[in-house]
Amino acid sequence: MKTNFSNARESLESFFAQGKIFHGWLSPGFVLGVIMVDFAKELLGKCELTDAVVETKSCIPDAVQLMTCCTYGNGWMRVKGWGKMALTLYDKRKLNSIRVYVNCEEIKKYKPIEQWYMKSGHVEKTIVANEIIKAGRTILLWQKVKVEPHIKKDMIFNICTSCGESYPANECNLCPRCAGIDNYYEVE
Amino acid sequence: MKTNFSNARESLESFFAQGKIFHGWLSPGFVLGVIMVDFAKELLGKCELTDAVVETKSCIPDAVQLMTCCTYGNGWMRVKGWGKMALTLYDKRKLNSIRVYVNCEEIKKYKPIEQWYMKSGHVEKTIVANEIIKAGRTILLWQKVKVEPHIKKDMIFNICTSCGESYPANECNLCPRCAGIDNYYEVE
Repeated sequence: MKTNFSNARESLESFFAQGKIFHGWLSPGFVLGVIMVDFAKELLGKCELTDAVVETKSCIPDAVQLMTCCTYGNGWMRVKGWGKMALTLYDKRKLNSIRVYVNCEEIKKYKPIEQWYMKSGHVEKTIVANEIIKAGRTILLWQKVKVEPHIKKDMIFNICTSCGESYPANECNLCPRCAGIDNYYEVE
Repeated sequence: MKTNFSNARESLESFFAQGKIFHGWLSPGFVLGVIMVDFAKELLGKCELTDAVVETKSCIPDAVQLMTCCTYGNGWMRVKGWGKMALTLYDKRKLNSIRVYVNCEEIKKYKPIEQWYMKSGHVEKTIVANEIIKAGRTILLWQKVKVEPHIKKDMIFNICTSCGESYPANECNLCPRCAGIDNYYEVE
């Protein structure tokens, strides 16, 4: 799926096709993400190792994962839960960075996009996706930014005294679930 | 990359091969993730729509994204930053769920795995990955759990009065970055 990265003639259509499988459908956010990543890659130019930061959890992370070497699990794509349709690609070594975001004035020319983007009323998602493809980069802005280097902390691991599973050590000898900090399941 | 999901004869090796491209390399965590997801899928059985929760940000989310319909960007995979090598797959409609996690006693039989898992000393990652493949499901445990349904909240969007970009509305009319809640870049 990422084997054609170096092929300059690859088209956005190929990523849309891959997105139908990976993301599940051609959501407006995914389509927007593909156009944003393509733009950011071009602006950033060739770099040996790329890192990414996405400012929303929705859709756009999947475009980054399909179109760059950055995935959620390899740690090269970080996600900020800001709910902003914006992303930054940067050179992991040199730290020069390109941030791409949406031009809120320009999208007013495309009512279905504006309605979807501002969540200001129901609009057919397929129509929005097609409008985004039509608008392309015209609804995007970009800026050079400086990203702080992302440093992974070394962690010590403990066995939780309650569930017996391993977790990054903390003060109370309990993993986050057993400590009651967070939860999503009950054992049946 | 996920086109062969329905092929019962697909081997874990095919996912390892795909992982080299998607994840970037065969990390021990990715290899462990592939074995965990394969096990969880088998235990869960056939279900129309699967959701996933992963309890660590490292490596395992990529195995889930390659081997199920759940991705970070489509929202069907949630990630908890607990640092626990564990995951839950569940039927989105019926909510019956299988949680797979590591048997901390059993991994003591595999010193390289134990050292890597508990971060208790340097160990060659390729050796660990190979040991994990050798150990397979013998180092895993599972349990039936009940997952609370994941409900997406409807949000209202605002234009940030500082940067002019769109973001989910809050009390102060500023997006999280402009409000100083979180940041990762400076504009050059």
